[in-house]
Amino acid sequence: MLKAAILGASGYAGEELIKILLRHPEIKISYLMAKMDESCPISDLFPWLEHILEIECKNEIDVESVAAENDVIFLALPHRVSMDIAPSFLNLGKRVIDFSADYRLKDVDEYQKWYDVEHKSKEFVKYSVYGLCELYREKIKDAQLIANPGCYPTGAILTCAPFLKSGLIEPDIIIDAKSGSSGAGRTPSVKLLFSEVNENFKAYKVCNHQHTPEIVQELNAVYGAPVHVSFVPHLVPINRGILSTIYMSLKKTISVFDAVDILKKFYHNEPFVRVRKADVYPEIKDVVCSNFCDMGIKVDQKRLIVVTAIDNLVKGAAGQAVQNCNIMFGFKETTGLL
Amino acid sequence: MLKAAILGASGYAGEELIKILLRHPEIKISYLMAKMDESCPISDLFPWLEHILEIECKNEIDVESVAAENDVIFLALPHRVSMDIAPSFLNLGKRVIDFSADYRLKDVDEYQKWYDVEHKSKEFVKYSVYGLCELYREKIKDAQLIANPGCYPTGAILTCAPFLKSGLIEPDIIIDAKSGSSGAGRTPSVKLLFSEVNENFKAYKVCNHQHTPEIVQELNAVYGAPVHVSFVPHLVPINRGILSTIYMSLKKTISVFDAVDILKKFYHNEPFVRVRKADVYPEIKDVVCSNFCDMGIKVDQKRLIVVTAIDNLVKGAAGQAVQNCNIMFGFKETTGLL
Amino acid sequence: MLKAAILGASGYAGEELIKILLRHPEIKISYLMAKMDESCPISDLFPWLEHILEIECKNEIDVESVAAENDVIFLALPHRVSMDIAPSFLNLGKRVIDFSADYRLKDVDEYQKWYDVEHKSKEFVKYSVYGLCELYREKIKDAQLIANPGCYPTGAILTCAPFLKSGLIEPDIIIDAKSGSSGAGRTPSVKLLFSEVNENFKAYKVCNHQHTPEIVQELNAVYGAPVHVSFVPHLVPINRGILSTIYMSLKKTISVFDAVDILKKFYHNEPFVRVRKADVYPEIKDVVCSNFCDMGIKVDQKRLIVVTAIDNLVKGAAGQAVQNCNIMFGFKETTGLL
Amino acid sequence: MLKAAILGASGYAGEELIKILLRHPEIKISYLMAKMDESCPISDLFPWLEHILEIECKNEIDVESVAAENDVIFLALPHRVSMDIAPSFLNLGKRVIDFSADYRLKDVDEYQKWYDVEHKSKEFVKYSVYGLCELYREKIKDAQLIANPGCYPTGAILTCAPFLKSGLIEPDIIIDAKSGSSGAGRTPSVKLLFSEVNENFKAYKVCNHQHTPEIVQELNAVYGAPVHVSFVPHLVPINRGILSTIYMSLKKTISVFDAVDILKKFYHNEPFVRVRKADVYPEIKDVVCSNFCDMGIKVDQKRLIVVTAIDNLVKGAAGQAVQNCNIMFGFKETTGLL
Repeated sequence: MLKAAILGASGYAGEELIKILLRHPEIKISYLMAKMDESCPISDLFPWLEHILEIECKNEIDVESVAAENDVIFLALPHRVSMDIAPSFLNLGKRVIDFSADYRLKDVDEYQKWYDVEHKSKEFVKYSVYGLCELYREKIKDAQLIANPGCYPTGAILTCAPFLKSGLIEPDIIIDAKSGSSGAGRTPSVKLLFSEVNENFKAYKVCNHQHTPEIVQELNAVYGAPVHVSFVPHLVPINRGILSTIYMSLKKTISVFDAVDILKKFYHNEPFVRVRKADVYPEIKDVVCSNFCDMGIKVDQKRLIVVTAIDNLVKGAAGQAVQNCNIMFGFKETTGLL
Repeated sequence: MLKAAILGASGYAGEELIKILLRHPEIKISYLMAKMDESCPISDLFPWLEHILEIECKNEIDVESVAAENDVIFLALPHRVSMDIAPSFLNLGKRVIDFSADYRLKDVDEYQKWYDVEHKSKEFVKYSVYGLCELYREKIKDAQLIANPGCYPTGAILTCAPFLKSGLIEPDIIIDAKSGSSGAGRTPSVKLLFSEVNENFKAYKVCNHQHTPEIVQELNAVYGAPVHVSFVPHLVPINRGILSTIYMSLKKTISVFDAVDILKKFYHNEPFVRVRKADVYPEIKDVVCSNFCDMGIKVDQKRLIVVTAIDNLVKGAAGQAVQNCNIMFGFKETTGLL
Repeated sequence: MLKAAILGASGYAGEELIKILLRHPEIKISYLMAKMDESCPISDLFPWLEHILEIECKNEIDVESVAAENDVIFLALPHRVSMDIAPSFLNLGKRVIDFSADYRLKDVDEYQKWYDVEHKSKEFVKYSVYGLCELYREKIKDAQLIANPGCYPTGAILTCAPFLKSGLIEPDIIIDAKSGSSGAGRTPSVKLLFSEVNENFKAYKVCNHQHTPEIVQELNAVYGAPVHVSFVPHLVPINRGILSTIYMSLKKTISVFDAVDILKKFYHNEPFVRVRKADVYPEIKDVVCSNFCDMGIKVDQKRLIVVTAIDNLVKGAAGQAVQNCNIMFGFKETTGLL
Repeated sequence: MLKAAILGASGYAGEELIKILLRHPEIKISYLMAKMDESCPISDLFPWLEHILEIECKNEIDVESVAAENDVIFLALPHRVSMDIAPSFLNLGKRVIDFSADYRLKDVDEYQKWYDVEHKSKEFVKYSVYGLCELYREKIKDAQLIANPGCYPTGAILTCAPFLKSGLIEPDIIIDAKSGSSGAGRTPSVKLLFSEVNENFKAYKVCNHQHTPEIVQELNAVYGAPVHVSFVPHLVPINRGILSTIYMSLKKTISVFDAVDILKKFYHNEPFVRVRKADVYPEIKDVVCSNFCDMGIKVDQKRLIVVTAIDNLVKGAAGQAVQNCNIMFGFKETTGLL
């Protein structure tokens, strides 16, 4: 059994990771840490774990002993915190899967601009592998440091990459994305109170969301030239799930069947990408609590429209992290994820 | 006091109309009808009306007496039903405000294609006035038959018209619209059950929604040439409100301040259109239970993005109907609506 | 026009008070204050007020000038803050309607025990009138200081008082209450985040909620002897409304019609209490955004069960405050509330 | 591998059963049937099953072949339908687990009174075993026909049985229960529309719900004398989960620790009952998607209050059915359920 440590166990992604790993036959949760005043049984934080996982969640960390006793370190920590902690594990030779944005952007200046902080671990940025399994599987196998993709970028990149590669679309894409509230994390704020989010719907950070450079970096890499993205996220009053409606411009008209074919071929052997037949679209409930990324396609004259759904906490965070871990340690990629 | 009859009082729009008219100082609800097995006090249908409005809701209609006793007839009836009933009132000289789509499309063939039914009242289509007050105020004053606009078209047309008129944008627009569930009406279906809609989000009728020709008809009229619209509606798990994120292509780059100015000037004296300052966007809760249409603007290179919010039952149905009625009968336009 | 000042305008009750007073023909909002870093237009806090109420919301208060320029002071402030501010207005002879619990409990020791703070304004506790209009209308007319009732106590006391007075029930009552989340206020906390409240339901402060002594004080007064109350509040994932299911023990069996009669007679002339016919029960949506308190009754052997619904922000806060204000200043009691 | 047939696969309980069995290492879903116009792949009904379970869901049944090819028959059918179908399987010697109420009530007259229909399978009522595993484990082992308990009764009986057995409480109990909407099933009706349930909360069938006789039957059996139950269900705007607040009268005062002890001892070895420590209460989210029944206790003078939570679709339906199946076929009781 692989022994796993989870740092940042008290957030939504950390909680989801615990849930997934409990069903994983090859991985054992052996260490938990979260920011809080005092250590306590994890079931004090999450009563649903009573009788299921009865271990302590620590409020401080002794890196050396955690490194000595664990095979893989999951960092479900906020942006800016990961880069303080990851290096010590990496220097001890441990393999790290980081949920934060800290190692995703290869251009450190971009990171500093969007996250408004000096990057403290630039040397490891070079070695990190962007953990989008469908695109980087080979690199992930040997990676020591995985930058687990952001929730919005996961669905967006998986959708656009095949079409950009095909050469059929213009490099100017609109991503109209709608996310449940767990994407905003568990830190209290007036804007995230139930009475504010419930019975409301809004756009936020219009063309100004920090996931924009991550999407652009990956689409540029796929396309081999600059791609412009207008990324407009919205907040849906649901707990989990992201549905993105993505608008692309076709260079020449193709049929919806052609478009479906492009995606189906691209993701032919992928265990977690499902392409609907023409003119059928996924809904968020089709993917909730699963690691699937579902896509449905419409062609409207020279406009190509794809509706893509994922669970932000699974394929967009903890599930994708486990998928990465499975690849890194040679388990079957779907282990614990179906 | 103007005496008003409401046919179709049991639906969401009919209920909202009752609520609004109860606060209207110049209009008195004098007749209610709804499709049901037996007539009953309206407070049996809507217990919130107990002690407030204690009149009977009829299950059948005697057109002559209703016409004789009322000054204005509100038809809050489903599509296809209005055109069966409206002509009798019109032939008796009554003024009719119709919530359905039956008299909105000037091209009867388009109606028949999108609503999949033979139009039974073609002669009155010509005389109907499309009741978007901000565009057709003068015609509304003397109209006998108002085709009250659809909920999605109201926000969409109000947003796009000024920019199309300005000549600054291409005639090819994306409307990514998100609506609460009351827009789907009160008829039972599995898809609208609480357990299906709650914790879900989906696109539906992608580029295939019956409000598309209505939007196109009005934008064509404004632009004076064909406009292409990709209209993608989504269902949000909230009771009321529509937020549309509308993407337009600028022929040349302008600043966000220029764009705000265009809207502010166009709607300078309008009591129910509010334009936010640059880079500030309305949320659905800003307009819930109000007759306002709120807009916020972003310019992203040569893309113009407007976020527009209305309450689908008020500005998108009953409120706009009362606004029309105020104009028709010479009341101050905001009466009963603030 | 009566001029009103609202202190604590940024909370849910303050916001609701603004909404109600905007429709009140005899009262004008002339001053707003809220705790915040800087003064700003109230429409910055509440964009729905743009074009409707364009006055400044202050972040500090000059008691003398506010007292000089206003006829009535509404304190929509948290518990413990009201008693710091109310005395200065009272000493200047102003009439004050306080939404907090600070002046509700006549026994200051009880206050200190439940609210865990030294009472700083004991002398005014004696002069305060508990603003439950249906029970204390005469005293309210001349009151200088109204202690506006708590949201849970309002429905609970209105339900139990008539039966306790009748002598038909035992003085031992179960109140199983369910409230929407606005009752918890707008202060951020993890427990009130959307992702925590949504898709959840829980009991909290079981037999330990600070509204217990308020309910007991009033029921004791009605009964003339000690009444025991088991008060169990629950949190419902909705924005507003309280539904209480109240269990009483009948000393002897009566019919449900007798029970309905007792309530109907007690509230015969009350404009805001509605008693359903036998075996019909109010739902929260029957009272949302209204000042009504609705009740429905079941008799199950020697158990009397009443289901009571109010809107916690209207009849349970701002609406009842306006009802009190109407009584104090001699307006028709329903003014602005229907 | 045990081969399982599911009849009624299209309802919420049937869907949940599929989800659970997919993770069960000893049971294989080999046959699915649901009421619909035509047979179709089950992933047409539930797109989340695409790539996961690709079998046909039939719209008709050939009892003999289904019996020949399956080891256990799950009937996730509505009340009144089960008793039409179960006998044919029983007569062929198959073991049947029935989700409906048809075989729960031993007194057929009671069944006919509450379900308003002639019972068509009286002879099998005698042989059915009430599948509440914690109380009837021994009988379940050899049962041919399991009457899987109702959702409300499951939590209610598990809570009250230990206290009734202890002799410490009066045989007169209040069950104030709150359920999510999936308990009402997937049949369309106006009352279950999203817009009706959302932002609402109501009591329904007050002391008149068909689960009452089931609770009473089991509590009578435990107590050995008649127990009176006032059962008041409420509808919460959430998809799943039931929280019941249960009020009992103590014959003499005991401490909350004594009360906790009684439950802890009674359920000492039970894998799916969790008793919280004194004055800590379960919330619905603690049990959602799990087979646990969680309980928290308060003693208020001579009143004993227990808050009990289950997932209505798991412990209250499909999970409990699998627990029964595990017992019947000699698997470890928790198999597939943790």
